[in-house]
Amino acid sequence: MAPLADLYQLTMAYGHWRAGRHRAPAAAELFFRRGPFRGAFALGAGLAEGLRCLRAFRFSAADVAYLRSVLPSTTEDAFFDYLATLDTSEVPFLQVKGPLLVVQLLETMLLCLVNYASLVATNAARFRLLAGPDVKLMEMGLRRAQGPDGALSASKYSYIGGFDCTSNILAGKLYGIPVRGTIAHSFIMSFTSLEEVQPRELSPLAGGDPVDLPALASSWLGRVCEVLQTPLEKVNQGELAAFVSYAVTFPRDFQGLLDTYCVRRSGLPNFCAVALALHQLGYRAIGVRLDSGDLAQQSKEIRQVLRTCADRFQVPWFGTIPIAVSNDISEQSLEEFSREGSEIDMIGVGTNLVTCPLQPSLGCVYKLVEVNGSPCLKLTEDEEKMTIPGTKMIYRLHDAAGHPFMDLMALEKEPSPCAGQELVVHVLGHLDEARTVVPTTVESLHRTYFRDGQVREPLPSLLEVRNHAQMSLNLLSPAHRQLHEPQPYPVAITEQLHRLLTELQQDRR
Amino acid sequence: MAPLADLYQLTMAYGHWRAGRHRAPAAAELFFRRGPFRGAFALGAGLAEGLRCLRAFRFSAADVAYLRSVLPSTTEDAFFDYLATLDTSEVPFLQVKGPLLVVQLLETMLLCLVNYASLVATNAARFRLLAGPDVKLMEMGLRRAQGPDGALSASKYSYIGGFDCTSNILAGKLYGIPVRGTIAHSFIMSFTSLEEVQPRELSPLAGGDPVDLPALASSWLGRVCEVLQTPLEKVNQGELAAFVSYAVTFPRDFQGLLDTYCVRRSGLPNFCAVALALHQLGYRAIGVRLDSGDLAQQSKEIRQVLRTCADRFQVPWFGTIPIAVSNDISEQSLEEFSREGSEIDMIGVGTNLVTCPLQPSLGCVYKLVEVNGSPCLKLTEDEEKMTIPGTKMIYRLHDAAGHPFMDLMALEKEPSPCAGQELVVHVLGHLDEARTVVPTTVESLHRTYFRDGQVREPLPSLLEVRNHAQMSLNLLSPAHRQLHEPQPYPVAITEQLHRLLTELQQDRR
Repeated sequence: MAPLADLYQLTMAYGHWRAGRHRAPAAAELFFRRGPFRGAFALGAGLAEGLRCLRAFRFSAADVAYLRSVLPSTTEDAFFDYLATLDTSEVPFLQVKGPLLVVQLLETMLLCLVNYASLVATNAARFRLLAGPDVKLMEMGLRRAQGPDGALSASKYSYIGGFDCTSNILAGKLYGIPVRGTIAHSFIMSFTSLEEVQPRELSPLAGGDPVDLPALASSWLGRVCEVLQTPLEKVNQGELAAFVSYAVTFPRDFQGLLDTYCVRRSGLPNFCAVALALHQLGYRAIGVRLDSGDLAQQSKEIRQVLRTCADRFQVPWFGTIPIAVSNDISEQSLEEFSREGSEIDMIGVGTNLVTCPLQPSLGCVYKLVEVNGSPCLKLTEDEEKMTIPGTKMIYRLHDAAGHPFMDLMALEKEPSPCAGQELVVHVLGHLDEARTVVPTTVESLHRTYFRDGQVREPLPSLLEVRNHAQMSLNLLSPAHRQLHEPQPYPVAITEQLHRLLTELQQDRR
Repeated sequence: MAPLADLYQLTMAYGHWRAGRHRAPAAAELFFRRGPFRGAFALGAGLAEGLRCLRAFRFSAADVAYLRSVLPSTTEDAFFDYLATLDTSEVPFLQVKGPLLVVQLLETMLLCLVNYASLVATNAARFRLLAGPDVKLMEMGLRRAQGPDGALSASKYSYIGGFDCTSNILAGKLYGIPVRGTIAHSFIMSFTSLEEVQPRELSPLAGGDPVDLPALASSWLGRVCEVLQTPLEKVNQGELAAFVSYAVTFPRDFQGLLDTYCVRRSGLPNFCAVALALHQLGYRAIGVRLDSGDLAQQSKEIRQVLRTCADRFQVPWFGTIPIAVSNDISEQSLEEFSREGSEIDMIGVGTNLVTCPLQPSLGCVYKLVEVNGSPCLKLTEDEEKMTIPGTKMIYRLHDAAGHPFMDLMALEKEPSPCAGQELVVHVLGHLDEARTVVPTTVESLHRTYFRDGQVREPLPSLLEVRNHAQMSLNLLSPAHRQLHEPQPYPVAITEQLHRLLTELQQDRR
C-alpha cells in the first residue's frame, strides 16, 4: 500500500532526509474549508480504511526498485535503504503527528481515503433527510462509479450515510450490507410469448396439486382488463410471459417491472394478473418497480389501480404493495416527490449518489501545522488558503437544547473549555471580531485511534457507524440541518490561538 | 472477479436457468445515447480491463456460498452447482454474444469498466484540445478520485486521452506512465531560516571545490532584489531556506513553488537567487510552479522577471524557464489562458479531470438486442430509451477529405456498404426521414477480441492506444471536434434495419 502517494512526496522526503530533518517531530491536519453541497454539515468517513492503510504502510523491495527508477540518478542509495525500513509506528490520524518525512508521505493516501468517503456519505445523508425516515433507499451506482473500487466505496459510505441496501453483490459479500435486486428490462425483453414459459406449474403455498400458472394468469388478465377498462389486445404477451416465468421461479419474491412497454395498458394489468394468480395459490407479491416517466404521478395512478383491485377482488393487502422507483433520481427528484405527493415506498439511486454531481469532490486538504515544536503558517495571495497554525484540540460546543452550535479549535496546551463558562472566540471568516459564547456542554472531538503502529481502539461495525451518523444528524438544529441556505455552522478559534495567528502573520508579512 | 454484478442479474440468471433458457444464444450491445460534455465525440476506453475480467470470470466456492445466503431459500441447489461451472468461453465484447444467462450476468461488470474509462479519456482529450499540442499536461487527481482504484483508472485513461504524465506513483509503477512531481507548500512551510539548511555544500557540476550554497544564494538574492526593485526584508527566509535545501538535494532538478508567501516579493526573488547560484555552479533550474491567484497574469509577470534576469545577468536560458500552474484548473481556465494570453508551459489538473464535474458519468447502457435469433426491442414511455433491435455491424463512413461523417448500423446479415456507392439511411433522432449518403471510404468498426474464453488479438500498449486516440481525434472534422456547440455527429441505421424496427414497433404497440 505504501506507494499510494504523489511523486512530490517522495522528492520532498528525500529533501528532508538529506537535510537530516526526516525525524523532526511534525504534525499535520486533514480538514476541509467549505461544507459540501452548500450545506452546513458533512459526515466524516474513511477512518477505518485509513487505519488499515496506516498499519500496512511499508515500501516493498519492488516499490523501492521502482522509486529508484523515477527519482534522479543522483539520489543516494542510503535513502532507498532508509525507505525500506519505514513504518508508521510513530504516527496517529486525522491529526497526524510523527517524524516529518512520514507525516509528509501520508498526505495523498489519507486524502484519497477520506475525501470521497466523506463526500458520498454526506450526499447519502442528504438523500435520507429528503426521503424521510420511512422510505427505503437503495444504492445502485456500480455501473457509474470510477471502477470496481470506487463502486465499493460508494456502497459502503452510502450505507453509513443512511441508505438501506445496495445492488452491488460484492459490497454485500465484503461488508455485509443488505443486497437487493429483482429484474431488468432485458429479462422481460427476452420473452415474446407465454409458450416460452418453462416450467409452467406451481404448487399452492399450503400444498396440493400444482397448477398451470400461465393459464391461471391469463384467466386473471381477462378479469383485470375488464375491471381496469383497458383492452386485452394491447397487453404485451412477452411481458406477461416474463412475469409468469419470474413468478414460477420466485413465487415468494415476485416483483414486477412495469415500464418495458406501456405501464398503464400492459405492465400494470400484467402485474396484477400474475400477482392475483399467485394470491390464489397463497403467495404475496412483494412490489412493483418503475424506471421511466413521471414517477410521482405514475405512483399515484398505480396505487389507485392496486386499491381498485384490492376492493374488486377482495384482496386487502393488494392496496399496499410497495412501489419502487429508479431513473436518474436526484435531490431535486425527491423534492418533487414531496411537493407533488407520491405513493413511492422505495427509491433506487445510482449516478447522482455515487458521482455527487452537485459537487464531485470534497476538497479536503492536509497541511503541516507544526514542525520541531514551531507552528507553521501558510500565507498566500488567496486569503482563504491560509492555514491555522499549531497542534490543536477541537471541541464541539452544545447549547441548552443539546444542539451543537460551534466547533472550537484551541492550542493543545490550553486548558479545555468548561461547560457553562463564558469563552471569547474568533469565528473563521470573521477573525477580526471577538465574540463570547457560553456552551452548555463541551465535547472533545479528538480520539487516539492509532499509536505505535497499532490501532488502539476497537473500530465500530458498519452498522454502528451508520447509527452514529444518523444520531449526529438528529442532534443538529433544524437551521443547520436544512439542505438549502442553511445557517452556516461556525468554526472558531480561541483567543490564544488567534493571538498566535496574528503574531505569525505580522512576522511573515 | 465474478461477483462484480448487481443482485438482479443473479435473480434473473436463476429465472433463465429455471426456464431452461440459460443457454439460449443471446446478443447484447454496450452503447451510450448522448456524447459526453455536450460534445460530438467520445473516446471509447476500457477494453483491456474488460477483457482481463472476462478471462478471469468465475464464481469461486466462497462467491457461491455468499450467493446462497442472499438468494431466496427456495433457490435450487443445482443452480448454485451450475454457477460454479460458468465461464466466458462462449462470449465476445463489446458486442457480446453467448448463452443468455452469461450475457445477462456480464452487464454491470462491463458497464463499470467502460463507463468511467471512456468518460475520463474523453475529458482528458478535451483538455488536450484546449491546451494545444505543446503545453505539457499532468494528471494529479489521486486525492480527489473515488479511492485508490478510481485514481488509477483516472491516471491511465487521462494518459490515453492525451495527458503527458501523472503525479501518482502507483500508476507509474503499474502502467509505465511517466511520473512527475517536485515540492509542496508544506515542504516550504517546514523551514524558517537558512540556519536549518543541511547539508550546505554543493560541488560545481564540472567538478572542483564544494561551495556553501546558502551563502551563495544570499549574495545572489541581494543582486536580484536590486534588479527587481523589491525590498530584501520582504523576502521570506524560510522559503529561501527551503529552496536552497531542495537545490542542494536536487541540483539538476531544481524547481521553485512560488506562492507559499508572496510571489512577487518573496517566491520569485528567492527562486531567481537560488537558480542563479546553481547556474554559477553549472546547473540549470527546470521550472517554477504557481498554485494560486490569477495564473495567466502572473505567468506573464514571471516571464518578464525571468527575461529581465536573463538580460541583466547574461544567462539567456533563464528567460525560457518553464512555468507550471495548478489550482482547480478547468476547461474554462484553459479557455481564459488562451483568451488572455499566457506564458504557461505545463498545467496540472486534478479535480476537474478525474471527477468530470461537467458530466460526472457517461451513461452507457447494456441492452439485449437478440435472443434465440429473434431481435429484441424495448419500447417505453421515454422515446429516447428505445433500443435498436438485432445483431449489428457498425461502419464508419468517411468523406473525400478523410473525415468520418457518420456511423452506420446495419444488420449483421446485410452486405457491407461499398465505398463510392449511394446508401439510403435513417439518422437516429430523425428516423422518419430517409437520407442518402455516398461514403468515400467505409471502415468496419467491429473486431473480435475475445472468443472461446481467450483474448484473440494482442492488445496494444498504453502508448499505442494513446497515439491511436490522438490520431482519431485529428481525423475528426473541425465542426465535430469543437468543444462548444459542435455539429452533431450523426449515427444512422440502414433501410433494412429501419424496416425491422418499424415492423417490431407496430407488432408491439
